[in-house]
Amino acid sequence: MRVEIWSDIACPWCYVGKARFEKALEAFPHRDGVEVVHRSFELDPGRAKTDIQPVLKMLTKKYGMSEAQAQAGEDNLGTQAAAEGLDYRTRDRDHGNTFDMHRLLHFAKDQGRQDELIQALYKANFAEERSVFGDDERLVELATGAGLDAEAARKVLADPTAYADDVRADEREAAELGANGVPFFVLDRKYGVSGAQPAEVFAQALTQAWGEHSPLKLIDSGADADAEACGPDGCAVPQA
Amino acid sequence: MRVEIWSDIACPWCYVGKARFEKALEAFPHRDGVEVVHRSFELDPGRAKTDIQPVLKMLTKKYGMSEAQAQAGEDNLGTQAAAEGLDYRTRDRDHGNTFDMHRLLHFAKDQGRQDELIQALYKANFAEERSVFGDDERLVELATGAGLDAEAARKVLADPTAYADDVRADEREAAELGANGVPFFVLDRKYGVSGAQPAEVFAQALTQAWGEHSPLKLIDSGADADAEACGPDGCAVPQA
Repeated sequence: MRVEIWSDIACPWCYVGKARFEKALEAFPHRDGVEVVHRSFELDPGRAKTDIQPVLKMLTKKYGMSEAQAQAGEDNLGTQAAAEGLDYRTRDRDHGNTFDMHRLLHFAKDQGRQDELIQALYKANFAEERSVFGDDERLVELATGAGLDAEAARKVLADPTAYADDVRADEREAAELGANGVPFFVLDRKYGVSGAQPAEVFAQALTQAWGEHSPLKLIDSGADADAEACGPDGCAVPQA
Repeated sequence: MRVEIWSDIACPWCYVGKARFEKALEAFPHRDGVEVVHRSFELDPGRAKTDIQPVLKMLTKKYGMSEAQAQAGEDNLGTQAAAEGLDYRTRDRDHGNTFDMHRLLHFAKDQGRQDELIQALYKANFAEERSVFGDDERLVELATGAGLDAEAARKVLADPTAYADDVRADEREAAELGANGVPFFVLDRKYGVSGAQPAEVFAQALTQAWGEHSPLKLIDSGADADAEACGPDGCAVPQA
């Protein structure tokens, strides 16, 4: 069974929601039969790569919050994160464009290191003091920590077209699936969970989707059992 | 609705099956709502890139056919192809490793040109006189004809790791879905059609899968309607 998680590195609820989902997955009896794939979603795709600002300033500027409101929101998020055992820095965190991180996550997927990288990016963005924005070498360092080759990661970051279409394809799919926000969890393309729901909701979704997960139903003409196909033992030869 | 087609360029039934599927799709009332994705499958993955030989020789050597049997099979395939309006060269066609073509098809997918390229590869392999094996520049030419950038295609071909994991991931998925041969059509990950079935079977499969295609069922806790999520309008702020 496949679980796809649309999320953004700049999304605190994605950071918290991933931990809640993983708590449910950890306890799920069929967890070894569950494949998790991370999909790209940008909260702020229009932001220029060079436009980096403190989260609190962004919240007051973009959403018209007072400084006190913005800080209270961050403090509350810190509390929710702590409840999941996650560090969360409620002050002086930066906000910026995450497109390059998503490109890097697609490269990591090819290398079988996607989960390691997204975990490293979340931790760096939400818990550590050094900003993850506007510093490619910082991202290379995180990629290396996630088991990726530094030179290859550097190459991906230096070429703005690398994996760009993969990111956009994910974002198109999110829209098609009706996701307006993240995190957005899709189980077997059948069930969806929107937002950082409690672990119990993820447990229920896993159980339900697993129970209904079924092998493909094959459709054929019924007439000829021997399909006209090619396989490792050659191609079926039609009787003329 | 999504239709995934696992196939190999070296598979005559894939060439014929694609035409039969397209005949059904063309007549399908909801064809604009159907997305087609090509997936990789190699009939002969163990063959060295440099090991190119005439199809007829391969058939006698690998499958122990007599020359007359091999030629009769090719002639029959030519008849089946002609019935779908396809040219098929029953003599002097080459057989070889198709891994690089699959890598190129993944690149083409990123560029929105996958169907154009697979069509060009089929035509070149099955209908034209010049071999598609052992000649990267021939593939670059076909890629250009399919609307891809020559230099970019050349770069993909020159780097054996480019899109290699995508090809292998497709092949793993084929095995997981129970495909032992190709073409193998998967509709919405729910219905499968194995082999170059008649167009009527594809029409039935499209109708059935379309009728059952349903939006995601959302699962939530029921308790709080406001999901803890981030969207273009900011992040939900928890009430502490």
